[in-house]
Amino acid sequence: MRKYRISMLVGTVLSTLVFNVIAEDIVHDAEHFAMQNIKGEMWKANDKKVKDKLSALQKKFGKKPNIISVLVDDVGYSELGVYGGGKLRGAPTPNLDKMANQGMKFLQYYSEPACTPTRMSLNTGRYHVRTGVNQVLFPGMEKQGLLKKEVTVAELMKKAGYNTAMFGKWHVGFGEEFAPINHGFDEAVWSEGNPVTWVQDAQESDLAGHMSVGSYLWGPKEMKAFYMEEGVMKGKRGEKPKKLYDVTIETYNTYDSDVADLTIDYINRVAKDDKPFFIYVGGKGNHFIGAHPDFMDTPAQTNTAAQLTESDYNLGRILKAVKANGIAENTLVVWSSDNGPMYAWQPHGGYSYFDKGEKGETWEGGVRVPAIAWWPGMIEAGQDPLDLFHVTDWYTTFASIAGVKGEIPTDRVVDGVDQTALLFFGEDNGLRDYHFYYNKGELEAVRKDWTKIYFDDSKVFMPIVNLMHDPMERYLTEINYAAYEPVSLMKMVQDHMIQIKKYPHYKQQFVIVEPNRPFDPAPSLKYESKMQVDWSN
Amino acid sequence: MRKYRISMLVGTVLSTLVFNVIAEDIVHDAEHFAMQNIKGEMWKANDKKVKDKLSALQKKFGKKPNIISVLVDDVGYSELGVYGGGKLRGAPTPNLDKMANQGMKFLQYYSEPACTPTRMSLNTGRYHVRTGVNQVLFPGMEKQGLLKKEVTVAELMKKAGYNTAMFGKWHVGFGEEFAPINHGFDEAVWSEGNPVTWVQDAQESDLAGHMSVGSYLWGPKEMKAFYMEEGVMKGKRGEKPKKLYDVTIETYNTYDSDVADLTIDYINRVAKDDKPFFIYVGGKGNHFIGAHPDFMDTPAQTNTAAQLTESDYNLGRILKAVKANGIAENTLVVWSSDNGPMYAWQPHGGYSYFDKGEKGETWEGGVRVPAIAWWPGMIEAGQDPLDLFHVTDWYTTFASIAGVKGEIPTDRVVDGVDQTALLFFGEDNGLRDYHFYYNKGELEAVRKDWTKIYFDDSKVFMPIVNLMHDPMERYLTEINYAAYEPVSLMKMVQDHMIQIKKYPHYKQQFVIVEPNRPFDPAPSLKYESKMQVDWSN
Repeated sequence: MRKYRISMLVGTVLSTLVFNVIAEDIVHDAEHFAMQNIKGEMWKANDKKVKDKLSALQKKFGKKPNIISVLVDDVGYSELGVYGGGKLRGAPTPNLDKMANQGMKFLQYYSEPACTPTRMSLNTGRYHVRTGVNQVLFPGMEKQGLLKKEVTVAELMKKAGYNTAMFGKWHVGFGEEFAPINHGFDEAVWSEGNPVTWVQDAQESDLAGHMSVGSYLWGPKEMKAFYMEEGVMKGKRGEKPKKLYDVTIETYNTYDSDVADLTIDYINRVAKDDKPFFIYVGGKGNHFIGAHPDFMDTPAQTNTAAQLTESDYNLGRILKAVKANGIAENTLVVWSSDNGPMYAWQPHGGYSYFDKGEKGETWEGGVRVPAIAWWPGMIEAGQDPLDLFHVTDWYTTFASIAGVKGEIPTDRVVDGVDQTALLFFGEDNGLRDYHFYYNKGELEAVRKDWTKIYFDDSKVFMPIVNLMHDPMERYLTEINYAAYEPVSLMKMVQDHMIQIKKYPHYKQQFVIVEPNRPFDPAPSLKYESKMQVDWSN
Repeated sequence: MRKYRISMLVGTVLSTLVFNVIAEDIVHDAEHFAMQNIKGEMWKANDKKVKDKLSALQKKFGKKPNIISVLVDDVGYSELGVYGGGKLRGAPTPNLDKMANQGMKFLQYYSEPACTPTRMSLNTGRYHVRTGVNQVLFPGMEKQGLLKKEVTVAELMKKAGYNTAMFGKWHVGFGEEFAPINHGFDEAVWSEGNPVTWVQDAQESDLAGHMSVGSYLWGPKEMKAFYMEEGVMKGKRGEKPKKLYDVTIETYNTYDSDVADLTIDYINRVAKDDKPFFIYVGGKGNHFIGAHPDFMDTPAQTNTAAQLTESDYNLGRILKAVKANGIAENTLVVWSSDNGPMYAWQPHGGYSYFDKGEKGETWEGGVRVPAIAWWPGMIEAGQDPLDLFHVTDWYTTFASIAGVKGEIPTDRVVDGVDQTALLFFGEDNGLRDYHFYYNKGELEAVRKDWTKIYFDDSKVFMPIVNLMHDPMERYLTEINYAAYEPVSLMKMVQDHMIQIKKYPHYKQQFVIVEPNRPFDPAPSLKYESKMQVDWSN
């Protein structure tokens, strides 16, 4: 691997010839090493400061820091108050706003374009394409998911001596082999996905919107969802998962609050333990269907608003539990969205101010999402760095904070870079100014600094945009990609492709199986007019 | 007039029959009285509290409060840091951000759709359509502008015993009869508009953008602009205006800073005067052409960024002068944009996150602009009310603060409502939940609460949008306007139209005159190929 890296770098622009520092053996994307060649000295100095800061903290608390990672569904970039939404969208988010104001709000944070791909990236630190899961896993798509050979962030945390738990939406494979308790978590209560969508029980109508507000409002009331293979599951490492309860729309409506209850209970149980803890929470956020009965009074009167308000409230409860246990200064809490909004159900399903892109697309609106990091005493309040951040970066950052970067596997590419210095020392200390926008297994766009190119190797001319001049991607110009200056962007893609040849993507294929319960929604009303005319004679 | 108002109200929904409070004789739009019927008691109570608060202040300072109103060019809704722009757009705005954080940032502030119309509204408190000026006044369009029969805000301030001054871009009519010193200002240094645009001297190219960054970058260097009839003018009430200097691109590049110098000099001169002062500043903001040499180092490297950064700096200097004179607690400073951005010169000319609309349009992007009010001790810090605010509201609000609401003429419609209670007591104390979107003299849309309808009385079906569900106006539905529920919106337009019959718009027509200097840009290069083929034989 070292040999490869050197040959790769020798092949790049001249300046990289002087590169001779390899900080660790993790195989990051080639572009990381191009950056390191420029910023390596600063990174090294930061690494030392990071270690000192963590050592001082460990001395104070007698153990490593706790980590809570909350991932929510479909919240668009501009939905939170601190991102320009909140009350302007009829869904105030006082707790997330406070969390951001007390911590760090990311202005250029990227998820993968959809639910399962982002969750694969969060767990493995790798672009979804490398893991062999290229799409959202829908019911019946079995035998594909989080492979045993992936080293998950929870497994790294176990190696670091952590208590580990997972609560909420998991969605990286159906069935026991993919269950969280078989991928590093000591215990978990999880659902394999969300309930299926079903259109019925429209109660009200409202003329202002993409479709009437009434249809989908609060969702169907008594439907058994067939989405889940097994319902909401519960288990501990080494045990067989047991079904806790069925997933119905009613149980789904209160699911986010139930998940928060479980999280808080766990925090209370392990806060005083000798070991630190790592909790991964799959929250609801802005999903298009269902809403908790206690949160239906938002000004917007949409599922989206009800869910976001509930989600915000639950985040507040989790932070309160952290503070009540006196562990806030030793606990990093991060919150992020798994992808952009879903406009098919407008006005439900979230929203983003970005002109282009929704869930499933690599336009900014589909993948540029809100994200917050909170750690009183360690992360300075009120920060909003411009540095790029990708969902995979949590993997390496958590490993760094837990002191187990050395346990990250070196026989594959790990895209996540260590962003601890960004968290501790603020803007311009990030390790990322590039991003590869993958979608459904294909490289659709690349970004370096403020320049984004929509990539298609079958074309000669490709759209380019400067995201500082045109954050909404309105005025795309086409360039001849081969002739593009600076060369860096072209070289960046080339090196990326060369690296893939050396470290091929894992191949996986789902198998379609019959659902284990019938798809049996309430029958549609059959209309027959009372006014019949007989003109047969 | 009273008789009209009563008959009008009798004709509205039943609830208005109980309406019997007429707070003053100002003829506001009919919808104002419909609102008053619901909120009149609260408004009356607020009026009393406002008076008490102002009396206490006057006791403390021995005079009425000073007012500074800064209006800038073409700054889109999302350009400032506190509105989600700033460093994300390569143009940090630390001073405006601080002003907003120390005061009130409006989330739903409306200008008129273009430069001259907004300036007409700011000076008269009336929709541009009522004043007879329906478009931007371009060079040669003479004999149209701010009529003598309009009672300007500066004239009201004179009646209240204020020192009055105007500095910067005036742009409400060419020639002496329209000059600020003939419309209420004791003294002024003003330009009648901005320099004409001219494309030359493109120095660099950049592939990322609507057009190359290089063209227009910093603008032409040595052109005499023919836009100004007279150049930058100077004068005092009762005197003839004198030309201070020609308007060239070079003088325009430093104009905003010159205007700030004049403003600061004036503040220093009159701060200790027995009389309070009213200053109207026409600043540069985000215009597409020209940039001060000292502000060309912004990350975005565009005119827009350079100008906004300069404008922000100059605003900071003005606030500093206010504080240095020890009058901050007795000085209201308001800042707003005259319309949305201008995309023809993208990436120069500003930007807005709103999907639809630019300068000259009534989509939200064209008229929803940033605005800030700052008054330490009187306006609480850190507020961002949802209440609607229209540029005309400053007129009545300033009159209220200066104690001369009784001097507002009652023989015409004044659209501006008194928003002092909103400034003093915050969100939900505003007097406006409706807006009429006029453009080039036509009513293009109306808004009540969160509902906006694009109005066209030649059509049966009209587009409607709920701005809470869809702030970017992406998902417009068409409704049968006549059948629309709630009736209030239909009734609102009807009453508005009836009122116009009683108070007709002033009629004005511009006269085209020859410019007083030749339009003589550098000649275009004439291309002739050296390779000629003769095939005549």
